[in-house]
Amino acid sequence: MKNRIITISREFGSGGRTVGKLVAEKLGIPCYDAELISKIAQESGFSENYIKDASEYASGGFLASAFANRSFGPTNEDYLWSIQQKVITELAEEGPCVIVGRCADYILRDKADLLKAFIHADQKFRAERIVNVYGETEEAPEQRVREKDKRRAAYYRFYTDMRWGVAQNYDICLNSGTLGIERCAEIISKLY
Amino acid sequence: MKNRIITISREFGSGGRTVGKLVAEKLGIPCYDAELISKIAQESGFSENYIKDASEYASGGFLASAFANRSFGPTNEDYLWSIQQKVITELAEEGPCVIVGRCADYILRDKADLLKAFIHADQKFRAERIVNVYGETEEAPEQRVREKDKRRAAYYRFYTDMRWGVAQNYDICLNSGTLGIERCAEIISKLY
Repeated sequence: MKNRIITISREFGSGGRTVGKLVAEKLGIPCYDAELISKIAQESGFSENYIKDASEYASGGFLASAFANRSFGPTNEDYLWSIQQKVITELAEEGPCVIVGRCADYILRDKADLLKAFIHADQKFRAERIVNVYGETEEAPEQRVREKDKRRAAYYRFYTDMRWGVAQNYDICLNSGTLGIERCAEIISKLY
Repeated sequence: MKNRIITISREFGSGGRTVGKLVAEKLGIPCYDAELISKIAQESGFSENYIKDASEYASGGFLASAFANRSFGPTNEDYLWSIQQKVITELAEEGPCVIVGRCADYILRDKADLLKAFIHADQKFRAERIVNVYGETEEAPEQRVREKDKRRAAYYRFYTDMRWGVAQNYDICLNSGTLGIERCAEIISKLY
């Protein structure tokens, strides 16, 4: 496959999804994020909410699955992982695009010409952002950010066997808190 | 201190030092790298070679020091670390500059307006580069690169208590192997 794909991994609240949308707009190519979940839902028969919960957004799903006894066969999460691989690979075959999250960097590692980006920011920036942008009303947004970080890292590690957030896994890592979300999008789109 | 300082941490062989020189040229500000070692030598009374060996380039010095019994007082390496902190802080006070290596990002963390960059590349790229650029003639350059990585990471961890190469420690991390050394310098200088 010769399509050039930009994958964006990101910390919760860092604005990585917005960076992805802006990059795609600048380049005139599609950006897949929530769309991925719909497609996985269609193929798997699970509800969209279940898919969100089952993977990186898990409150119980994935972590319970990680320690499940697989001698009874694959868990629902393993099944979703295989659908996710299929959906992402098919999208990447359709043409150049931006894919946010969902371990796309790992899934496409030998299948496409990738530009792999990671967007992060300190916890304070992200905690403020989830309150301001998403209107999250929880009392302890910093705690929520930490929890999400842990779950995403665990999910990534379990299915890819790589450490999340280690610079060496990416072509470019940007701190959206210090550089700004718009500037991150500008840098990535210029690299394409 | 209001001076804006660019710190460049880098994997051995990644071309991070060249990136630093290019960034400094583009911005018309000084770049400190080998100069740092001379200054530390002058202040400490140790030879330049001893300083190189004692810290991140250690063949025995630093790692032996890390496990030394400090109830007999600080080791030579601890003494060098304090001189290094002093030299780097003084340089940063003189004016805007680029500083390559020597944990400058950590030393200046609360003392200057920093742009913290990390340059890395895969082992194959770096092994080839040390042979081509530095004319290294060792039989196993990849082994050499791995050894240096381990020593730099251990040194950084020991004196800063932070993990080396973790994206969250930097404003920007760039893969010089996939993006090219010249492009890395361009991106960083535009961020300044």
